Amino acid sequence: MILEKIKKENDIKELSEEELEILADEIREFLIQKISVTGGHLASNLGVVELTMALHLFLDLPKDKLIWDVGHQSYTHKLLTGRRENFDTLRKYGGMSGFPKRKESDCDCFDTGHSSTSISAGLGYAHAREIAGEDYKVVSVIGDGALTGGMAFEALNNAAQLKSNFIIVLNDNNMSISENVGGLSTYLSGFRTADAYLDLKMGVMNSLNKIPVYGNKMVERIRKTKSGIKQLFIPGMLFEEMGIIYLGPVDGSDMKGILRLLKEASNIEGPVMVHVLTHKGAGYLPAERHPARFHGTEPFDIETGLPSKPRVKANYTDIFSTVMRKLGDRDEKVVAITAAMTDGTGLKRFHNMFPGRFFDVGIAEEHAVTFAAGLAAAGLKPIFAVYSSFLQRAYDQILHDVCIQNLPVVFAIDRAGLVGSDGETHQGIFDISYLSAIPNMTIMAPKNKWELSDMIKYAVDFPTPIAVRYPRGEAYDGLKEYRQPISVGKSEWIYRESEIALVALGSMVKTAEKVHAALREEGIPASLINSRFAKPLDTQMLMEAASKHTLVVTMEENVINGGFGEHITRFYNEQGIYVNVLNIAIPDEYVEHGNVDILYHEVGIDADTILKRIKEVYHPL
Amino acid sequence: MILEKIKKENDIKELSEEELEILADEIREFLIQKISVTGGHLASNLGVVELTMALHLFLDLPKDKLIWDVGHQSYTHKLLTGRRENFDTLRKYGGMSGFPKRKESDCDCFDTGHSSTSISAGLGYAHAREIAGEDYKVVSVIGDGALTGGMAFEALNNAAQLKSNFIIVLNDNNMSISENVGGLSTYLSGFRTADAYLDLKMGVMNSLNKIPVYGNKMVERIRKTKSGIKQLFIPGMLFEEMGIIYLGPVDGSDMKGILRLLKEASNIEGPVMVHVLTHKGAGYLPAERHPARFHGTEPFDIETGLPSKPRVKANYTDIFSTVMRKLGDRDEKVVAITAAMTDGTGLKRFHNMFPGRFFDVGIAEEHAVTFAAGLAAAGLKPIFAVYSSFLQRAYDQILHDVCIQNLPVVFAIDRAGLVGSDGETHQGIFDISYLSAIPNMTIMAPKNKWELSDMIKYAVDFPTPIAVRYPRGEAYDGLKEYRQPISVGKSEWIYRESEIALVALGSMVKTAEKVHAALREEGIPASLINSRFAKPLDTQMLMEAASKHTLVVTMEENVINGGFGEHITRFYNEQGIYVNVLNIAIPDEYVEHGNVDILYHEVGIDADTILKRIKEVYHPL
Repeated sequence: MILEKIKKENDIKELSEEELEILADEIREFLIQKISVTGGHLASNLGVVELTMALHLFLDLPKDKLIWDVGHQSYTHKLLTGRRENFDTLRKYGGMSGFPKRKESDCDCFDTGHSSTSISAGLGYAHAREIAGEDYKVVSVIGDGALTGGMAFEALNNAAQLKSNFIIVLNDNNMSISENVGGLSTYLSGFRTADAYLDLKMGVMNSLNKIPVYGNKMVERIRKTKSGIKQLFIPGMLFEEMGIIYLGPVDGSDMKGILRLLKEASNIEGPVMVHVLTHKGAGYLPAERHPARFHGTEPFDIETGLPSKPRVKANYTDIFSTVMRKLGDRDEKVVAITAAMTDGTGLKRFHNMFPGRFFDVGIAEEHAVTFAAGLAAAGLKPIFAVYSSFLQRAYDQILHDVCIQNLPVVFAIDRAGLVGSDGETHQGIFDISYLSAIPNMTIMAPKNKWELSDMIKYAVDFPTPIAVRYPRGEAYDGLKEYRQPISVGKSEWIYRESEIALVALGSMVKTAEKVHAALREEGIPASLINSRFAKPLDTQMLMEAASKHTLVVTMEENVINGGFGEHITRFYNEQGIYVNVLNIAIPDEYVEHGNVDILYHEVGIDADTILKRIKEVYHPL
Repeated sequence: MILEKIKKENDIKELSEEELEILADEIREFLIQKISVTGGHLASNLGVVELTMALHLFLDLPKDKLIWDVGHQSYTHKLLTGRRENFDTLRKYGGMSGFPKRKESDCDCFDTGHSSTSISAGLGYAHAREIAGEDYKVVSVIGDGALTGGMAFEALNNAAQLKSNFIIVLNDNNMSISENVGGLSTYLSGFRTADAYLDLKMGVMNSLNKIPVYGNKMVERIRKTKSGIKQLFIPGMLFEEMGIIYLGPVDGSDMKGILRLLKEASNIEGPVMVHVLTHKGAGYLPAERHPARFHGTEPFDIETGLPSKPRVKANYTDIFSTVMRKLGDRDEKVVAITAAMTDGTGLKRFHNMFPGRFFDVGIAEEHAVTFAAGLAAAGLKPIFAVYSSFLQRAYDQILHDVCIQNLPVVFAIDRAGLVGSDGETHQGIFDISYLSAIPNMTIMAPKNKWELSDMIKYAVDFPTPIAVRYPRGEAYDGLKEYRQPISVGKSEWIYRESEIALVALGSMVKTAEKVHAALREEGIPASLINSRFAKPLDTQMLMEAASKHTLVVTMEENVINGGFGEHITRFYNEQGIYVNVLNIAIPDEYVEHGNVDILYHEVGIDADTILKRIKEVYHPL
């Protein structure tokens, strides 16, 4: 096996051309094999095998700097930098991350996870190189989807001022996670479809290539041609007009072609974009056919491409999907927005049924929120469905565009809490903190699947900004019999006993039930309150909890700082109520990747740990 | 006076062409007169007088929707919608806002303040119009500086999908607050300088205009021309390639020309950009010459253009400016970043002295932070100087790009606290909350000008992410004798007495001094602690404060939720220490514009109110 010859970075350079071709096949087979067992990002990784190999042939790692945007497509990069053995622990607790990590390898020079950061980071390296008088190459690899993120554009705009070499590889697979949308996408698609245009361009490039000058001189010649005629022959005018030299497009399976273009690009003083047309899922038919499903996949059967363990129970996203369909039917003012996550957020059905009231705005959370504010100001009822960690991108827009004007925008916050295998960058554990410090914001979290449904319905008719946060994965279907109508700032008593009051928010109600049962076994009575609202607090409930119990335990799946529990502790202090309060929350630390159940225990919000902590502070009179 | 005929929206439509010309002059005179007394935004408003008049002639307000990006240039709009009488109270407490406000007028359809939001909001209105089957025009007016903000690009990308009319006016004055930078700026500047090119374009447009077809047909004809030849004659290809029809440029003083172009634009189905070349400060020589100084100005003398009350004392920005110059000299690794605020953040001197280590990235806070992370990863010491409310834009980048990797980026957060006349959108009262919930972040705040200097020096050599927050305005020069070296997480005891511990952060140390003096007068001993760090907390000091006093008063210029005081209250609770704690902070509400001293009192963080609140809870044994 050729792959076994690759023990560390730059080993790939020892291979013959023939071996390189075999290696590409071996890498694909390896990735399919491994990911079929561990789960992980498949389609995007299969699409960039040759591109990654070309980059490794081109660069001298770790001296040179290679930055992967988002980073879920870095598996081949990990393979080529000596991490083959680690693939069995991919995305597992204590194992290899699914994203680039500086801790993991010198060849990972910048951690990524969220979209559209790579040009900014790469530009930082490029400028630092100039200032320090060093000499290394900097390459940022960004997808066409990630390019719709505003900060990528901010970085391109800023890059135009750079006087030294900086290569931006546009990894264009004509999609983000699902179909790519917007003007930029249409523009780039034109490069694929306009065959005549491309032929013409290729013809010109070929003719020019035959002229015995160095590549960079050719580029310089075209660049300096004052005549607008060049615009006819060079795709990429959009980038050229912003001051970025454009080269390409080149086919993503053409390793030699990519390498040639990279070498050409490296001779240019200033920022240059190399446009590579890749194909998500290339080499594995099920992934080619269903790239969105094989974006991030659970373990699957290689023969059929079907999940190894079919999902039995509904998850919260499914519930959201169903209620959105109903609301869309019932109320023509309901409109839904996603930032390139139609599938992930469960809006596909809404999209199909109400295409005129559905908006996929691209990877553009900032715009999404202010756009929603505009829709709300005009009298509609917009619901922005988004993952918790991605909503962080729109913090200012929530604060500045939605909440100052007190506009009725609904935030349906999926993946709120620990998400597991995606790790630090994707844990949705900050939203209560960042949202609850914003005036005019109301925050809810459901205890089970029926309550999610009720809360979304409630939110749609709420007159001011409101968020519903719910976790990734299987929807809790216990406590079905508790379904009092939702009322702002009102909690729900599940068990009304004595001694200990378990005040749990959202996903923690399920955990609190376990704690309650364990306490009961030990003969300790405890009340269980489903708090429902993280903001405003149910002050009446809190007063009762304090007066009728000796210990109040707050429970949330969010960091401790600025969270639900902290607000409750302050409330009691403000009221001059001296009650024993135990705040259960995630400590002030990032949480790495791994199985969610392991993580719950690690951060101390599992039932066993909570029970232990209760016993440390609970002393029956 | 013609201006007196304008009592409400649309009154302008009754004027003759001659009267319109006079009106433009009267508006300029009015603005200069009023702003010379009240202070406010002058240069940008003088630049858009004719543009605003043309928009008001074109639109039917309030039915049609007009959205001003940032909004500080909306004074003429306010004048033309019946708010002339309110200019005496401009930006004063209880008076007229310096920005569009829905509360103020039906003709203000969306509140603004921060940059780059108008296209998103306008697109929301345009889509809502389609969904509701209504019929009104939507116009967003965005500056060339604001166009560098990423979310404007996200919105443009998304707008390309709109099938109905939406007009984006590009108010291009070739600058943001100071000089505009980046590829886009260079691109747009080309339109101004390439006279031959423009002449050619104008020639073509004129010829086409002579053909007796409606304007939209002409545009459609050009649009449909498959031949790339059109690219030679139409500036604005960058926008056209993204799917936005481009019209212009037109001179910003040519009211009739602008109106003609707007009418033409309104016949296009889909998004269209009207490019208007305006001139900041037009009609008032000092403002034309020094547009940056007259961007937001204090009261000034009309004859000379000089401030009415020259500043005597240094403000915090001046101190920062000085220390940055010193640090730049001392350490070649120190680099400074601003997001279009070179003057405002005090980096002008650094820029002049170390141009190679200074970066103005445009209005692009998101990029700025990740760019800084890249610089830090490459071994430099980046300092991002930014206003507190604008840093909100980069919340995710701080959390995701700086703090996960624990990179040594310094955030020099100016305008932290109440800023006064700019109001809700600009109050810097959330940064402690949103930063302190981020793991790995350290947050400092200086008590006086010397401490700011010490803290910036300390921060530059700090190994992990660190923020220094300091307020707008005059730097406190009291307590000079207290200057113990900065040490992470360590506070400074100013007075070590008994009974009451005043634990004050940053700007509140000055206030705490007053409280301390007042208590002393009443014979109540109090300790005063300059906490210095909002994160991490000085737990040793807090233990001592609790054990040796009967009341601990926390004081901060930040909202209560997720703030310094709340963290302290939780700390005591965690430790099982029952101490009487009073949290002084800004309530969970937005704070409107007005004189800062009035606002301090309104939100209850002035010395008198604090004293009153202390007496409510302090009961000597």
